[in-house]
Amino acid sequence: MMRTTANDLTLGQRLYERLEVFARHSEDEDKLTRVFLSPQHRAAADELLGWMRDAGMAAHVDAVGNVVGRYEGLKPGAPCLMMGSHIDTVRDAGKYDGNMGVLAALACVEEFNRAGERFPFAIEVIAFGDEEGVRFPVTLSGSRAIAGTFDQTTLSLRDKEGVSLRQALSDFGCDPDKIAEIARRKEQVLAFVELHIEQGPVLEDAGLPVGAVTAINGASRLSVEVRGTANHAGTVPMHLRRDALAAAAEMMLAVERRGRAEPELVATVGRVDVMPGAVNVIPGLVRFTMDVRSPSDAARRRAVADIDRTIGEIAAARGVDIAITLTHEAAACRCAPELVEAIGRSIARAGLPVRELPSGAGHDAMAFSRLCPVGMIFVRCEKGISHNPAEAITVGDADISMRVLMDFIRTFDAGYLNRPTEERPAA
Amino acid sequence: MMRTTANDLTLGQRLYERLEVFARHSEDEDKLTRVFLSPQHRAAADELLGWMRDAGMAAHVDAVGNVVGRYEGLKPGAPCLMMGSHIDTVRDAGKYDGNMGVLAALACVEEFNRAGERFPFAIEVIAFGDEEGVRFPVTLSGSRAIAGTFDQTTLSLRDKEGVSLRQALSDFGCDPDKIAEIARRKEQVLAFVELHIEQGPVLEDAGLPVGAVTAINGASRLSVEVRGTANHAGTVPMHLRRDALAAAAEMMLAVERRGRAEPELVATVGRVDVMPGAVNVIPGLVRFTMDVRSPSDAARRRAVADIDRTIGEIAAARGVDIAITLTHEAAACRCAPELVEAIGRSIARAGLPVRELPSGAGHDAMAFSRLCPVGMIFVRCEKGISHNPAEAITVGDADISMRVLMDFIRTFDAGYLNRPTEERPAA
Repeated sequence: MMRTTANDLTLGQRLYERLEVFARHSEDEDKLTRVFLSPQHRAAADELLGWMRDAGMAAHVDAVGNVVGRYEGLKPGAPCLMMGSHIDTVRDAGKYDGNMGVLAALACVEEFNRAGERFPFAIEVIAFGDEEGVRFPVTLSGSRAIAGTFDQTTLSLRDKEGVSLRQALSDFGCDPDKIAEIARRKEQVLAFVELHIEQGPVLEDAGLPVGAVTAINGASRLSVEVRGTANHAGTVPMHLRRDALAAAAEMMLAVERRGRAEPELVATVGRVDVMPGAVNVIPGLVRFTMDVRSPSDAARRRAVADIDRTIGEIAAARGVDIAITLTHEAAACRCAPELVEAIGRSIARAGLPVRELPSGAGHDAMAFSRLCPVGMIFVRCEKGISHNPAEAITVGDADISMRVLMDFIRTFDAGYLNRPTEERPAA
Repeated sequence: MMRTTANDLTLGQRLYERLEVFARHSEDEDKLTRVFLSPQHRAAADELLGWMRDAGMAAHVDAVGNVVGRYEGLKPGAPCLMMGSHIDTVRDAGKYDGNMGVLAALACVEEFNRAGERFPFAIEVIAFGDEEGVRFPVTLSGSRAIAGTFDQTTLSLRDKEGVSLRQALSDFGCDPDKIAEIARRKEQVLAFVELHIEQGPVLEDAGLPVGAVTAINGASRLSVEVRGTANHAGTVPMHLRRDALAAAAEMMLAVERRGRAEPELVATVGRVDVMPGAVNVIPGLVRFTMDVRSPSDAARRRAVADIDRTIGEIAAARGVDIAITLTHEAAACRCAPELVEAIGRSIARAGLPVRELPSGAGHDAMAFSRLCPVGMIFVRCEKGISHNPAEAITVGDADISMRVLMDFIRTFDAGYLNRPTEERPAA
């Protein structure tokens, strides 16, 4: 690990310790669970409002439950560099997913405010309330509302207790009828930049504390049904079988092989159901799921088409029937190349090799792609583990994250966003 | 299909129609379910006793619920050729599994009795009551009791209603304390021969109505646990994964490949459990079962050893951990080569090609291997379907079965059983 100054270490340690403190806003004392619009969410929001105001920001909770803090620039009312992440969690969560991005951005403003630094742009720090989608069957409500793509019909969705999103917002102190009003105009937001733990093993594997995100991967999810003939495992010779599971196993390996064929493509079979599922019966029916992701939509579609064709060939060769259904599709969100480069420059100025990598998981940043240029900074997390109490970062990495983010803000130049650049080739 | 005489057709038709009549002894009117020691089993036994007595046999229900009929030979008290099968069924069963073997043997005796034919040996026809093991967690109680290998400790086993096997036998009118007394001595039984539907597709595939069984396959059942690392399907690049399911899929194909490598070997993966089993999570743990059968115990053990080694190699190459557990092992029961040949001669005299094949399913005949030479005749069933109301045979095949079985009995010569023969090579 690189040498850091005493002052830098203090920044990392302060962030690390504040994340510990903030994690106490939880349903349970011994594990972290903080769902959208819960009393724990309210308490976390209130604490955050206080910290924001102490850092010289104007702060409020908006109509959809976002905690919004604004640090004015040299001229009041200037367009902003928007930063932040989410403060809701999954059940039995880690302390860094989402929260780190919010508290790191806040800590930057604290430093600027302490030193009296102001910029030609305002800084807004936003803590979104609904990235995990745990309570209601919807996600990114907060970031979508800011980006102007909030779906009003989701207000009637209900949680397990039957409480509607509209009611929960009112109980939280929000006015759901004013959600449309919080949407920002393009000229108000120069960029959205989110710092987030990687939730994957790439940076750890590369021995690097931080990386510049190139894109949030698009995803296709498919369901494959394989129909053979169920029969007695003892009485049917191998050459007279139509074994749905053996066929499915061959298909699963084809999925893996195609995933391996391109560096940034991933393809996963996560769920398999085998019927009838008895030790002495040849399986007659198998259903399995497939999840294919890539920073390049074209690469993803090519992979899905290839897998579809290979599955068809395997089925034909084995005499089994197949049905393939597309159950979900989301386009990739490309980060703005200018922001990827600017983040890379800040990483390089911290004395570190610049690693660019895609994000395999979804993030609030996705919601902003139509409003403004989007950038993301990834921070190494232990073994890539997330959504788990074992989620871990180091104080050293928190420190480097703070240095990179502060440098990025100090050198942020809205001008470079408008310079023409060549489109990067698809990964 | 070969030409048959009017008289032969009548035999097949009579057997076919009697199987229809006998199938009415069922729990439900619209499907066949007749479990061990049930009222339906009792009614079936009583009807059978009447038919046996009408055929000139001394008949009784023994201490373990078998219906036993004896047709004396030329000299009373002569050692017997024992034939039969079971009259219990699975739930929602077919009409031919077990029942056909009992009623075909009975029909032969009816013909002999009508014509006044007697042989140097007695004929015993036994309808065993417990081959399917549906009611109590034990199987072959009836045939084992006759063979002298009944396990007295099973008398305390209970059915789902909490009724013990001992109590159920008493309620049926049997004396469970006398089960040991029904065991036969070697000198009393010349051979046990069972006619049974194939319950597999081999004869149908070969276009043949009957076949001579060479062995009842031995079986090994194994449970394989594959431990990788569960992780996010989006964030972990392919080369950093320890995907338990992809590893298991490769292992499943290795099981199939080894099963295909020898003609009479079968290897099946019937059950797979994938954890956590979500579309967007790389599986961390997979458990699957494996069922390996062969008429040759040596061939089966070689196959299991090969599969075990291959699974180990796959696990090592992929960096996953495995645990393989043997959950069940049963030795093969070789049919007496002299009986296989004698059955073959009777098939040939019926003008048919002789097909020898192993039995992949278990049968009462297995229980007799320590008491006497064992033989089996398989009858083609439609699509190999069994344990299912779709189980079907043709009148023509019933007819050929009767001709082969009658010829076999008429030419049965206890002397040939004592002639030294070379051991057949393992399949």
